Amino acid sequence: MGEIVTAAMTVIGDEILSGRTRDSNIGHLADRMTAVGIDLREVRIVPDEQAAIVEAVNVLRGRCTYLFTTGGIGPTHDDITADAISAAFGVPCEYDDQALRLLGEYYASRGIEFSEARRRMARMPRGAAHIHNPVSVAPGFSIGNVFVMAGVPSVFQAMLENVIPTLRTGAKLLSVSVPSPLPEGTIGGPLGEIQKAHPDTIIGSYPRYIEGKFWTELVIRSRSEEALQAAKSSVEEMIERLLQRN
Amino acid sequence: MGEIVTAAMTVIGDEILSGRTRDSNIGHLADRMTAVGIDLREVRIVPDEQAAIVEAVNVLRGRCTYLFTTGGIGPTHDDITADAISAAFGVPCEYDDQALRLLGEYYASRGIEFSEARRRMARMPRGAAHIHNPVSVAPGFSIGNVFVMAGVPSVFQAMLENVIPTLRTGAKLLSVSVPSPLPEGTIGGPLGEIQKAHPDTIIGSYPRYIEGKFWTELVIRSRSEEALQAAKSSVEEMIERLLQRN
Repeated sequence: MGEIVTAAMTVIGDEILSGRTRDSNIGHLADRMTAVGIDLREVRIVPDEQAAIVEAVNVLRGRCTYLFTTGGIGPTHDDITADAISAAFGVPCEYDDQALRLLGEYYASRGIEFSEARRRMARMPRGAAHIHNPVSVAPGFSIGNVFVMAGVPSVFQAMLENVIPTLRTGAKLLSVSVPSPLPEGTIGGPLGEIQKAHPDTIIGSYPRYIEGKFWTELVIRSRSEEALQAAKSSVEEMIERLLQRN
Repeated sequence: MGEIVTAAMTVIGDEILSGRTRDSNIGHLADRMTAVGIDLREVRIVPDEQAAIVEAVNVLRGRCTYLFTTGGIGPTHDDITADAISAAFGVPCEYDDQALRLLGEYYASRGIEFSEARRRMARMPRGAAHIHNPVSVAPGFSIGNVFVMAGVPSVFQAMLENVIPTLRTGAKLLSVSVPSPLPEGTIGGPLGEIQKAHPDTIIGSYPRYIEGKFWTELVIRSRSEEALQAAKSSVEEMIERLLQRN
């Protein structure tokens, strides 16, 4: 059924933790990873502090096939991701010649000063490779299994689409959703038995509460189509049986 | 300027990591913590696996004044939060008499079977206290400095409002936003100098990209109104000066 490929994410930014900005990158990455067959295993949101970033990056890059970071790669003093990733890898953070050239040409063509602050966006860990930024030129970068991208959602999304074709991807986790008009409390017992009888599947139960009434979305996931269909039949039979009884 | 009170959050749920459900509880908690003067320091999203939950809970409860968790307290087999929190604290997970009575009365009054699955929602670590659930009765619980709440947003929000009055709160972090029509690359250098000159403030710079143009939201935060206003004046003078030059 193919290799299991895993991912983790580190969201870097005081503005997410203070509530000032609502993150939308986690949900986007989760969707894209699921679509290409990579298991997103853990997400950590950390403040703009080097020690916190280094800790999260070093733990998560050791645990998963890939680590994605968002945020902190702009030109201001609170953009410390390039320094923190360099520290995490124990390499110097340096101006990258190709990035300086790209940014220099971009600003020259627009008559914008290539300020010291803008030059900061060309800094990256020694040995890092570029991630192309079609929106605003300043590149993201990758080093080892870590992909460092922008926090602005349009830029993050564009960078991620440039990264995905370079990744190993796993056997896709197939999924099927079975709506249950019965609440979790009614189906919980028999559903647990079905999960035990179908160990090659992951059966999730998600309560929905709409207009004062609980119903349940049952989601069955598996890397095997056969296992998926067998569990789905069992779940559907269970719902039928319980509906007749109630 | 008062005590610093910190918080962390653990979001428990495969459905967030798979992209099936968009989390909205992180942003809500961030807003509420900022409003009452508690610093949200870190958030971790972990899967429905006991080892992952225990690790996150034990690290974060040791680091912060309070830890809040969401998700995994329903009646189905994938709701393992009560067991995981018990394991994290090294205490047994037991049926709580008061919770059994509450739930029993609730279901009896509605003519709903008090099934084995529903009885699961009365399980909690030995020594835990209830968090009242005005929406659907099944209580959350607290043990030590950890508050365990539902993942369904309406229930989480109601539980959180019952918890907040019981918390120590710190000196509120005051905040003021200064919009800059200049992009980060132009203001980055002088803004870094202003940050250095105002160490009692945290100056954040948040790029906004709308209709092909970058502008910047500058946010100054401090526990001192005086320090806040001094930094704000410096930032406004900087923007004036740069606008005249450009």
